Amino acid sequence: MSLTRIHNFSVSLDGFGTGEPQSAEAPFGHAGQRLHQWMMATRSWDPTGTAGVDDAFAERHDPGIGAEIMGANKFGPPGWQDDPGWDGWWGPNPPFHTPTFVLTHRPRPSIEMEGGTTFHFLEASPAEALETARAAAGGQDVRIGGGVTVVRDFLLAGLVDHMHLVVVPIVLGRGVRLWDGLEAVEEGFDVEAVSAPSGVTHLTFTRKTP
Amino acid sequence: MSLTRIHNFSVSLDGFGTGEPQSAEAPFGHAGQRLHQWMMATRSWDPTGTAGVDDAFAERHDPGIGAEIMGANKFGPPGWQDDPGWDGWWGPNPPFHTPTFVLTHRPRPSIEMEGGTTFHFLEASPAEALETARAAAGGQDVRIGGGVTVVRDFLLAGLVDHMHLVVVPIVLGRGVRLWDGLEAVEEGFDVEAVSAPSGVTHLTFTRKTP
Ligand SMILES: NC(=O)c1ccc[n+]([C@@H]2O[C@H](COP(=O)([O-])OP(=O)(O)OC[C@H]3O[C@@H](n4cnc5c(N)ncnc54)[C@H](OP(=O)(O)O)[C@@H]3O)[C@@H](O)[C@H]2O)c1
Ligand SMILES: NC(=O)c1ccc[n+]([C@@H]2O[C@H](COP(=O)([O-])OP(=O)(O)OC[C@H]3O[C@@H](n4cnc5c(N)ncnc54)[C@H](OP(=O)(O)O)[C@@H]3O)[C@@H](O)[C@H]2O)c1
Repeated sequence: MSLTRIHNFSVSLDGFGTGEPQSAEAPFGHAGQRLHQWMMATRSWDPTGTAGVDDAFAERHDPGIGAEIMGANKFGPPGWQDDPGWDGWWGPNPPFHTPTFVLTHRPRPSIEMEGGTTFHFLEASPAEALETARAAAGGQDVRIGGGVTVVRDFLLAGLVDHMHLVVVPIVLGRGVRLWDGLEAVEEGFDVEAVSAPSGVTHLTFTRKTP
Repeated sequence: MSLTRIHNFSVSLDGFGTGEPQSAEAPFGHAGQRLHQWMMATRSWDPTGTAGVDDAFAERHDPGIGAEIMGANKFGPPGWQDDPGWDGWWGPNPPFHTPTFVLTHRPRPSIEMEGGTTFHFLEASPAEALETARAAAGGQDVRIGGGVTVVRDFLLAGLVDHMHLVVVPIVLGRGVRLWDGLEAVEEGFDVEAVSAPSGVTHLTFTRKTP
């Protein structure tokens, strides 16, 4: 069975998944790299990195994923839609290696990159986008890659089977909030928490079997 | 040296320290007892309770405390200030056993209870209230007992030496937010996190030594 999964999604103690303002120089705004320092310190990211609990979670990002869905603001900085040459932050060989569906109200033709990533641009509801991505995933799972709005929308629509969330002990104060409109969302999930020596806490939300 | 401490202060994943609306029947509003289930399950609260990490934190609430400061909305439900007989939620022998300062814009005469608790009513800034409580604490520490607004105000004023916070994996969606205005508050503290089998995560904020 093909699942819908979220991995390595970091939020501050006050529930922000990114700072502000987002820009080409600072994709996470004033948050800088603080939301993902835990990940960049792991071996999944840096061969000399740590190999403990942070790494155990980090490395679950790729295996078994056949397609990704992301939002327009993860794909590029404000204004990318006016740049016909923009093909993402990640250079010629992006780290997705699957069909990757970018939700946007200004779709454009697909872009085939090196290494198996093809960016498709989609104006569709979460459920429709998921159906399309699922069909492209070759029986594997679909990852909801972010940003914050897209993760929130998929949770709201009840489409998420597994979510790995990382609470970083910082107070961002501003940015985009994850939890708005999600009162009692935990009721649909079995939740586990484990904190790491790095100071972050990994939460897993696994959909309850009915 | 007399410290200013916060203990067992619970917040939801989305940063609420209480639900809404607060009332005599539901002091935490729609949050019910969900923010403090972890605590009520410990031996500190119930002799047949658990004695692990939740209990280790819970039992640090009292030792070494010589006075408490609390807000008007912790002391009573909306409207208590119109009831001249209101003397708190806790019956004749409240669990404070020290001078206890209630911050309110409608102060009234002090009330001496059984077991060492005397309620004093104070209209004062956090710094002034702390000075008053410190003088009454007999060299021991002062606890900031909540609610949410009072904890936030003491953090904002930079008056907190140690804070034990408990992140409960629920999304409340509404109530009173702890973190508003506290951007980057963690920079003044050494922060540790440890999650418990109960599912909550204990965070300690210990003021950095300069
Ligand atoms: N915390 C983490 O772990 C994490 C992970 C990934 C990314 N991020 C960060 O999150 C931020 C981006 O998040 P965000 O909330 O600002 O934006 P986002 O979720 O990336 O994208 C939202 C945008 O996508 C488009 N969109 C979303 N749903 C759509 C639909 N159903 N149909 C058509 N278009 C749709 C809309 O853009 P248009 O209307 O403009 O087309 C919408 O404004 C970035 O800072 C990124 O770095 C954080
Ligand atoms: N999460 C937890 O662990 C925890 C712990 C304790 C309590 N709580 C809950 O928190 C809620 C109460 O929090 P809250 O934020 O609503 O209110 P609160 O912090 O208990 O009290 C705020 C009120 O205290 C008075 N006040 C505060 N500072 C003052 C000052 N400097 N001078 C004079 N008066 C001052 C004002 O009341 P007036 O203007 O009306 O006098 C103000 O509206 C309750 O639901 C309680 O059960 C939660």
